[in-house]
Amino acid sequence: MKSKPLLEAHIELSEILRDTHYGHSVVEYSSPPSAGQFAKAVGQSIPFVVRGVARSWPAIDTNNKHSWTNEYLSEKLGDNPVTVSLTGNGFADAVTWLEDDKAKRRPMIGVPQNGSGYATPGQFVFASPYETQLPFTAVLSHLLDPRSPTVAHLQLQNDCLRSSEYSILLADVPSAIPSWATPILGAEPEALNFWMGHHRSISSMHSDPYENIYTVIRGVKIFTLYPPCDAYFMHKQEFRMATWRPVAQDEKPERIIPNVELVLLEGEDRLPWIPITYPALPAPLYPRFAHAPKPFVVRVNAGDSLYLPKGWLHHVEQEEDEEGLCIAVNAWYDGWEGMGLSWGWGHYAQKMETMFSDDEP
Amino acid sequence: MKSKPLLEAHIELSEILRDTHYGHSVVEYSSPPSAGQFAKAVGQSIPFVVRGVARSWPAIDTNNKHSWTNEYLSEKLGDNPVTVSLTGNGFADAVTWLEDDKAKRRPMIGVPQNGSGYATPGQFVFASPYETQLPFTAVLSHLLDPRSPTVAHLQLQNDCLRSSEYSILLADVPSAIPSWATPILGAEPEALNFWMGHHRSISSMHSDPYENIYTVIRGVKIFTLYPPCDAYFMHKQEFRMATWRPVAQDEKPERIIPNVELVLLEGEDRLPWIPITYPALPAPLYPRFAHAPKPFVVRVNAGDSLYLPKGWLHHVEQEEDEEGLCIAVNAWYDGWEGMGLSWGWGHYAQKMETMFSDDEP
Repeated sequence: MKSKPLLEAHIELSEILRDTHYGHSVVEYSSPPSAGQFAKAVGQSIPFVVRGVARSWPAIDTNNKHSWTNEYLSEKLGDNPVTVSLTGNGFADAVTWLEDDKAKRRPMIGVPQNGSGYATPGQFVFASPYETQLPFTAVLSHLLDPRSPTVAHLQLQNDCLRSSEYSILLADVPSAIPSWATPILGAEPEALNFWMGHHRSISSMHSDPYENIYTVIRGVKIFTLYPPCDAYFMHKQEFRMATWRPVAQDEKPERIIPNVELVLLEGEDRLPWIPITYPALPAPLYPRFAHAPKPFVVRVNAGDSLYLPKGWLHHVEQEEDEEGLCIAVNAWYDGWEGMGLSWGWGHYAQKMETMFSDDEP
Repeated sequence: MKSKPLLEAHIELSEILRDTHYGHSVVEYSSPPSAGQFAKAVGQSIPFVVRGVARSWPAIDTNNKHSWTNEYLSEKLGDNPVTVSLTGNGFADAVTWLEDDKAKRRPMIGVPQNGSGYATPGQFVFASPYETQLPFTAVLSHLLDPRSPTVAHLQLQNDCLRSSEYSILLADVPSAIPSWATPILGAEPEALNFWMGHHRSISSMHSDPYENIYTVIRGVKIFTLYPPCDAYFMHKQEFRMATWRPVAQDEKPERIIPNVELVLLEGEDRLPWIPITYPALPAPLYPRFAHAPKPFVVRVNAGDSLYLPKGWLHHVEQEEDEEGLCIAVNAWYDGWEGMGLSWGWGHYAQKMETMFSDDEP
């Protein structure tokens, strides 16, 4: 490549911080870390996974009558309305290719390339899911049907496990962290959330401003993590906004889970987002990403808890269990006093990028 | 000032990291922090002082017969040889002005300025002290004599309190940190050191690659601290090397503590050092320092322990007690796995400076 001093400085930065601080993979514990280890990890902003720590939770222990089987969940939640996110491709809140031709509006993952099937007129947009309320049992049946054209995901992130739709399940999941660790993360969690889906739902690369303790109840979550210093490689940029909505003229308007289509929103509003929807795909839209260092990949199995520090970039895939679902709960903490070193230094690096960018025009 | 994007980015970085991470002053505890608080401070690289934590140490408690009075120290150490650092101005290991005129070789603190008395031909050099071994009682008498032209400082940093010259005193100073905190700082300390001097000895701005627990036994140490992100303002640069040595033709060769003079070392070796010998003096040599944000200033009194994280820049002054001495001990720890986020990001910032400097030519 041509001399690109800023790119080279970032490649070196990511290497140095891995070699001297973050390490190269997620730390694994087989029992909860001590107070010192825990506080140290949070202070250093280094993720860890505790294997099997939640195996005896009522929600997870299959010998327990509160185990979150399909049957138990149906019984508990029944036809209660739950908020579901619907998309046509499994990417809720992600950058997606939107074709101009309305007749074949099948948004593509990835990037148009000469000679590939993606080279249709269109644009990249930030796509929000269609959010609606439906009976829990209908969503469950839909998730268990592999032929569904619409991808459903329960991913409400408003403390739904503690204070709204799923609070009836709260007693089945004791806290994922020891009581002494709560003040280290900043008193009680801000939100406790419930997640349910399968392999077709994928979270695009993003970061959250919260400390996160993520516990898998059923199936597997695969986290692809990059430390905050790698933000340079992620090409965050502004996108026109689009949303999924029920298709305008459905031939079967009676179906409970509608077929959906992606439509551009009116107005010129733009949202900054990372276009790395699916890291494995080729990426002319984000050439720097090709130089990104190796991510930290961790499979979080049922019964495992992951500590994901605020500001860490993460892309999340999931695998359903033999009963067809992946279920997880997470706790978000507002974090300690302050944003941490990564945030301030990241802002500085962004300034360097603005002032001294060596990207190709 | 003219537009200086890099300088402005650093001013903003230092502000942001104070506002969102470091705070604006040294955290004060009145009793030892908990394991979580301690590990958190070390993980976040944030200094704290514990007031009075060592007040009951035998070395400090004036009711204890092991209290480190002049009398007790004389009795214990007697005429044992101790390694003393001698200078003509109190700045051992510091950038100093060396005049060309050998006849009036009176090195100056600060910077030559037009119209000031400093405008003599010469150069800035890095000055090392004259190190020699002398009987402890001779050094003590010298330190108590305010008319001495030579400034003496006991500042041997080779684990002297545990394994060499002052090990006889070790039993009088229990560990400054609770036993549970030792593994947080990385097992046992690498070095335990003994410091003795008075207000005429000042440590110029520098940083150490070690975690430091610093406890004052007598007098006061005044630390002027800058977090690692402020390195940009410190103008580290290479200097010719000089050393203090006994004056060549002393009119009183019989004196035990020699008069000393500063002489340039042969050869072209240069040492990188921060030229901020005395922050209060005007500084045409380091114009960026005028834009440095407010330091964290902390007075560490007898009986207080300071946690000084690795990489923090510090300038140290001292005040003697009514018996004429300032005495302190410190423990250096190799630190945890790794150098911390500040080190890697600091390296990145140095690269930005090399590539995109906006200093005046």
